[in-house]
Amino acid sequence: MKLYNWQFAPNCRRVRMFVLEKGMDLPAMSEVIGDGLRLTPDFIQMWPHAIVPLLELDDGTRFSEAMGICRYFEDINPEPNLLGSTPVERALVTMWERRAYDEGIIGTAEVVRNGLEAFHDRGLPGVTEVVPQIPALVERGQGRVRRFYDKFESQLRESRYVASDRFTFADITSLCAVDFAIFGGMPIPEACPSVKRWHANVSARPAAVSSA
Amino acid sequence: MKLYNWQFAPNCRRVRMFVLEKGMDLPAMSEVIGDGLRLTPDFIQMWPHAIVPLLELDDGTRFSEAMGICRYFEDINPEPNLLGSTPVERALVTMWERRAYDEGIIGTAEVVRNGLEAFHDRGLPGVTEVVPQIPALVERGQGRVRRFYDKFESQLRESRYVASDRFTFADITSLCAVDFAIFGGMPIPEACPSVKRWHANVSARPAAVSSA
Repeated sequence: MKLYNWQFAPNCRRVRMFVLEKGMDLPAMSEVIGDGLRLTPDFIQMWPHAIVPLLELDDGTRFSEAMGICRYFEDINPEPNLLGSTPVERALVTMWERRAYDEGIIGTAEVVRNGLEAFHDRGLPGVTEVVPQIPALVERGQGRVRRFYDKFESQLRESRYVASDRFTFADITSLCAVDFAIFGGMPIPEACPSVKRWHANVSARPAAVSSA
Repeated sequence: MKLYNWQFAPNCRRVRMFVLEKGMDLPAMSEVIGDGLRLTPDFIQMWPHAIVPLLELDDGTRFSEAMGICRYFEDINPEPNLLGSTPVERALVTMWERRAYDEGIIGTAEVVRNGLEAFHDRGLPGVTEVVPQIPALVERGQGRVRRFYDKFESQLRESRYVASDRFTFADITSLCAVDFAIFGGMPIPEACPSVKRWHANVSARPAAVSSA
């Protein structure tokens, strides 16, 4: 089993942290395919979708998408449970994990992909042709991240973890979103003390440190 | 159990079709909350996330996100299986379902939300404050949909259905994506005969007709 892994990509960190929380041997399966802020040309040639992370099984089956890979790992390695133990918990983990992705990670990606010179002509991930940056998306993305923080502040004021009273995959993706937002120049606002408390707590987990 | 349902929204259609494929009684649970191209103000007041679809259980628990709701339905009503029967099939359904969403539905949403006068100042879903349209996103969204068609043409040339040799949730989301793209002025290209063959086949299912 091989996990193609780009250190920079927040979607790869979601899977790295999931693997470490499962107690699986990450270094044994991880293959580095990114160089700083770029995927290596060899990887793109092998996988023209140019989407990471990518898991390759020993029989050659390949699939991408962090949620798909993590569902696979949860199926073959059920403990500790990270995707939910009951139908309702599974639905809530799926919902909050997706909110963190759609608002936090995608909002930050809009800011980074359309604002940093390093991503000139690479305005979208997963595309090998030229995609011009759209400067107006920087401001729109900042708004998405601001609303992400507000929404998660409301939720974390009521709940110790994002989707449940225990640590789940929703916390992993939310942590990756917040750390990506910090990278993108959008630290946790002062008005979000519950997010700060939760972030300090989750960041102290060994898997958070090792996956960063 | 109540499913808050906006007829226009492709994400609501994903769940409507899933429910019908499961043989569940959609009219008995469905509550209409959209008027043409707008959610009703009553719904937004009740659910400030302003995201649809939303499921409300009899005990008052609420969750949104089509994938979260469908996971819940698959758990409480396992047959016919639509999310995958084995770990690998579940991963492949998750991956392809997500590609159809991220490229087909989001690509079209960029075109529609940033191009149609009806969405003036509503450039993003799930936001109640003003989000100005960004005209440059129309072209970028068209590119995403063009690549979506190309990618699914390659896949459907090799496979009768999107993720597997049988009908799954990946076909539901892909159908909703294609029909949304057609609404957005991006019909299936002539260069994609396999997508056309698959689309005619899947569109003939009773659940496709009743959910449209």
